Amino acid sequence: MPGQVLARGVCRHLASHGFACVEEFTPDRGKRLDVMALGPKGELWVIECKSSRVDFTSDAKWQGYLDWGDRYFWAVDEGFPTDLLPPETGLIIADGYDAEILRMGPETKLAGARRKAVTQRFARIAAQRLQLLRDPGAVL
Amino acid sequence: MPGQVLARGVCRHLASHGFACVEEFTPDRGKRLDVMALGPKGELWVIECKSSRVDFTSDAKWQGYLDWGDRYFWAVDEGFPTDLLPPETGLIIADGYDAEILRMGPETKLAGARRKAVTQRFARIAAQRLQLLRDPGAVL
Repeated sequence: MPGQVLARGVCRHLASHGFACVEEFTPDRGKRLDVMALGPKGELWVIECKSSRVDFTSDAKWQGYLDWGDRYFWAVDEGFPTDLLPPETGLIIADGYDAEILRMGPETKLAGARRKAVTQRFARIAAQRLQLLRDPGAVL
Repeated sequence: MPGQVLARGVCRHLASHGFACVEEFTPDRGKRLDVMALGPKGELWVIECKSSRVDFTSDAKWQGYLDWGDRYFWAVDEGFPTDLLPPETGLIIADGYDAEILRMGPETKLAGARRKAVTQRFARIAAQRLQLLRDPGAVL
């Protein structure tokens, strides 16, 4: 199942836990996270969606993404060989309609300055994308 | 000119200054700001859009909105009797396509805790509205 489809189910599920999600979030130049989720208490969770074994094994970047959230999760479909995934990361089983958290990612709290910067960036990206959808004539 | 039309021009103009905008922002129960704008350095600006003299004179709530941003502005169209507006507030002249800042609102910086709370709320509202537009099947 393509990553974007998994991301939709992930975002729906996290919304039911009070999280607001931004897909394809760019915390910094050259980095793109599949889902960044902002919780009711300001928690920041990073979720990378993997469509297949090769999609995971060819990803050389994911360890650089651990530093951008308080918790890190993989989201995969139910046919994915989950034994491949590092046990010290969170695990979400998803489809295009919903998802379930099977294992929480361990908490490694962001430092205050980075939390502030990531939250502001999340706010700005979400609002700019929203504006472009509401007002296609806007030039951002 | 209706307030929502002015808001569109305001958001377009502020976007050109690097601000991300959320319309009809609810910072707290019973409060609704026409435009909340988040700047590149984390600045929070509040803009109330007034369509007519009576729209302004019947507004008993606006002073309660001063506390939610670092600066406060009125946005009105070019026919509005701007003499009515308090001189110690900012002034934006807008139409549905663009806007211009005629007078900066004085800066009264938010305290850190409120800035953090408002920024988080801005982020969550923007992301939730974006998700509903991208995925109408989501239940938030």
